[in-house]
Amino acid sequence: MFNAADYSDLLHQLETFFAQSTPSHPVSQPLDPAQLRDRLPLNLPAEGKPLADLKIETAAYLHHAVKTAHPSYFNQLWGGVNGACLMGELLTSATNTSMYTYEVAPVATLIEQALITKLGELIGFTHPDGQFTTGGSNGNLMAMAIARHRAMPTLKQDGMLNAPPLIAFVSADSHYSFAKAAHLLGLGTNQLWAVPTDAQGKLNVAELESLITKAHSLGAQPFFVAGTAGTTVRGAYDPLTEIAAVAQREGLWFHVDGAWGASVLLSPKHRELMRGVELADSVVWDAHKMMGMTLMCSVLLVKQRGQLLNTFSTQGTDYIFHADESEPVDLGPSTMHCGRRVDAVKLWLAWHHLGDRGWAALINHYFELAAYAECLIRNQPYLELVTPRESLNLCFRVLPQSPDQDANQLTLRVRQVLLQKGLAMVNYARIGKHIIFRLVICNNQTQCTDLDRLFEQIGAIAHHLQAEFPQEKT
Amino acid sequence: MFNAADYSDLLHQLETFFAQSTPSHPVSQPLDPAQLRDRLPLNLPAEGKPLADLKIETAAYLHHAVKTAHPSYFNQLWGGVNGACLMGELLTSATNTSMYTYEVAPVATLIEQALITKLGELIGFTHPDGQFTTGGSNGNLMAMAIARHRAMPTLKQDGMLNAPPLIAFVSADSHYSFAKAAHLLGLGTNQLWAVPTDAQGKLNVAELESLITKAHSLGAQPFFVAGTAGTTVRGAYDPLTEIAAVAQREGLWFHVDGAWGASVLLSPKHRELMRGVELADSVVWDAHKMMGMTLMCSVLLVKQRGQLLNTFSTQGTDYIFHADESEPVDLGPSTMHCGRRVDAVKLWLAWHHLGDRGWAALINHYFELAAYAECLIRNQPYLELVTPRESLNLCFRVLPQSPDQDANQLTLRVRQVLLQKGLAMVNYARIGKHIIFRLVICNNQTQCTDLDRLFEQIGAIAHHLQAEFPQEKT
Repeated sequence: MFNAADYSDLLHQLETFFAQSTPSHPVSQPLDPAQLRDRLPLNLPAEGKPLADLKIETAAYLHHAVKTAHPSYFNQLWGGVNGACLMGELLTSATNTSMYTYEVAPVATLIEQALITKLGELIGFTHPDGQFTTGGSNGNLMAMAIARHRAMPTLKQDGMLNAPPLIAFVSADSHYSFAKAAHLLGLGTNQLWAVPTDAQGKLNVAELESLITKAHSLGAQPFFVAGTAGTTVRGAYDPLTEIAAVAQREGLWFHVDGAWGASVLLSPKHRELMRGVELADSVVWDAHKMMGMTLMCSVLLVKQRGQLLNTFSTQGTDYIFHADESEPVDLGPSTMHCGRRVDAVKLWLAWHHLGDRGWAALINHYFELAAYAECLIRNQPYLELVTPRESLNLCFRVLPQSPDQDANQLTLRVRQVLLQKGLAMVNYARIGKHIIFRLVICNNQTQCTDLDRLFEQIGAIAHHLQAEFPQEKT
Repeated sequence: MFNAADYSDLLHQLETFFAQSTPSHPVSQPLDPAQLRDRLPLNLPAEGKPLADLKIETAAYLHHAVKTAHPSYFNQLWGGVNGACLMGELLTSATNTSMYTYEVAPVATLIEQALITKLGELIGFTHPDGQFTTGGSNGNLMAMAIARHRAMPTLKQDGMLNAPPLIAFVSADSHYSFAKAAHLLGLGTNQLWAVPTDAQGKLNVAELESLITKAHSLGAQPFFVAGTAGTTVRGAYDPLTEIAAVAQREGLWFHVDGAWGASVLLSPKHRELMRGVELADSVVWDAHKMMGMTLMCSVLLVKQRGQLLNTFSTQGTDYIFHADESEPVDLGPSTMHCGRRVDAVKLWLAWHHLGDRGWAALINHYFELAAYAECLIRNQPYLELVTPRESLNLCFRVLPQSPDQDANQLTLRVRQVLLQKGLAMVNYARIGKHIIFRLVICNNQTQCTDLDRLFEQIGAIAHHLQAEFPQEKT
């Protein structure tokens, strides 16, 4: 039923795909949807064909896929490739099981628990509880649900009908998943209060305190505060120790969204950025970002055992959960999901490949690259670092030669040319009125020479655009 | 960075694993967690090791993994193996991207849309909208969230604070994910009303109508009703046309949970079971169940375009979604997630492998096997079919030879012996006072001879247990 030989064509296609994920090839060749539709076998056939003939489809897929392992792929908070992780993915898919019961996933359950313990210890939790989730947004949602349950356990049955207004606090720079969570949980986004940030993009604790006072004065009930450890755009780390002190005094659940930045805990040199995380009640940590696992590989860690189970357990599950052991080994009752894909095995295998020291070296390397990129930006008069670099995000813009020209438009157009030519993929965002490049360093294929090349390209494109459109201003 | 040769050890280990997923080998060798922990390399090392040396870990994983592709694996609503799907998994992992933007996932986005269109057409939707989700529970949650948004669009901002009691109706045999959804959404499980079922396990429409009347009389606001197309335990199909009529009259959102059973739409012979599904507002369809895709491969289909986007869109996403095209191609804003794994590519590749006709043949084969299993049960006086078979679930129990003995205990113990000896994995559940085997036919490796062998084993074990413990009664 499974012949290794059937996979040799695909493996060789992949070998070529990765061999072409290098600077001499484009990172992508963007087409608009209509053009791309014409080039793909999207029609699903009435008659099938043998496995060997599927190389037509796989070749089409690979030809048009974005090369996220290309050293010039800086577009998101993930990228690169890890050979051990890919082996783990193949192992996971071939043994196809679901994380809900120990009965059908004995090995994966113990591996997931071992990883929860390890990551929990890195955070500083004494008896960590947790689950792998379907992504950082999912983890933030679950954390907010646990906090709500702690604040008002009757909500599970009664709903929010007669509940007081429950107020959650996040920084103005926090991820949009908190807004989705507030909506889904029935709190409403109006009950998610954005705390202003300081000039570096960190949550302002004095503002948090005054908002809590304001909430009380309105008869509302604060129940949750999140610190972001590595904000999405700037990579800023909120002052976790100070937020924790407020949370403790006010009886709020303290959650840390470390989806992007918690992985610095793997580096003795850089873990100081996460100072205070051990005071959190829950932490989200995406191993598919800085640790380079394939999507998804996201973890929710909870300080106190049993809170996941108390929040998410429900009736009507006895057809599947038969546990009569003293030790709770079925992970399913402690999550919002029923079936859940195995995401832990690839991380376990990658850990055996890299070891603690390999992870530390990887994180340190990223910080060295980020410092190098910062130098390159500072050394060019036509580039401006728009916000101080705290971690691996470099937010900069391209300045026009003439004050009559518009930096936002120029930055956008430089980005567009990079993308259209397949030279590099770097995303953009806004900070205040400025449109900025958000260059993210988290691709294990990237080296200093790749950054040299990127900035040479940016310089050349900017120069060319300004020569071509000297008067442009929008 | 990727050498096909690095994967040959693993592929050959997998070849052996699958070669041993046959009747001459155990389906699993259960160990309790403490025993299993001793046999696994769970300690995460400080020093890593080369890819080639990871075969120690992969061998340990495979040795203790449950063989879910074994022809005697009947334990869940999924099982078996599909070679094209596995290729799709490898393709997905190697090209590692996220479903949120067309920019980073152009091919996968168009493939997902093509599949949404195809599955939607099979349902009978004219302009289907939809998304792949992280599982059927996730799809049911999202459907209930869309229904809530339609009933009360201000909830997104205001929360449920001043909302009337919103009542959702599901059958008493519906999946527990609706209870988790009612809890998460802040409705509270008390606002999820269970409609009694008839003797076959189908939602009783007259009871639904009287519960709606009761809700109105209490000043509550009915907003959602779900029909289950293939219940979890019995495999019963709710009367969708009749529920749709009530939903339309009362202005309720009509959702169909077809996680288990929607795949019968692929068979012209058996699609009649889903009669009325075209009247639904939304449908969940798990391709990782009857269609044999690896977990997860789950789809939420929505009749009316734009409702997903209206429900789930939020502020604070402009750092990632830059769409200025007239055609909305970024899937991210229309979901509750941010990053989402690519689950569509494996289904697309499998469709090219099997074609419409291959799917129909697969579903028809399952129904033939289920009819065969029913005969085997009816022909044995010591077995009792506890509920009529409607689809691919066979709910039966083992009857003791003496009326002094307890059928529940006997059924449980037969199951335990099957499991402990690694002969077969079949789950159990309760129907009323009876503990029953829930034999599920959805494994493409299973043939009639495997069912013959299963029932011979059950007979032999039951005989042996009764001879050994003739007086037992609990």
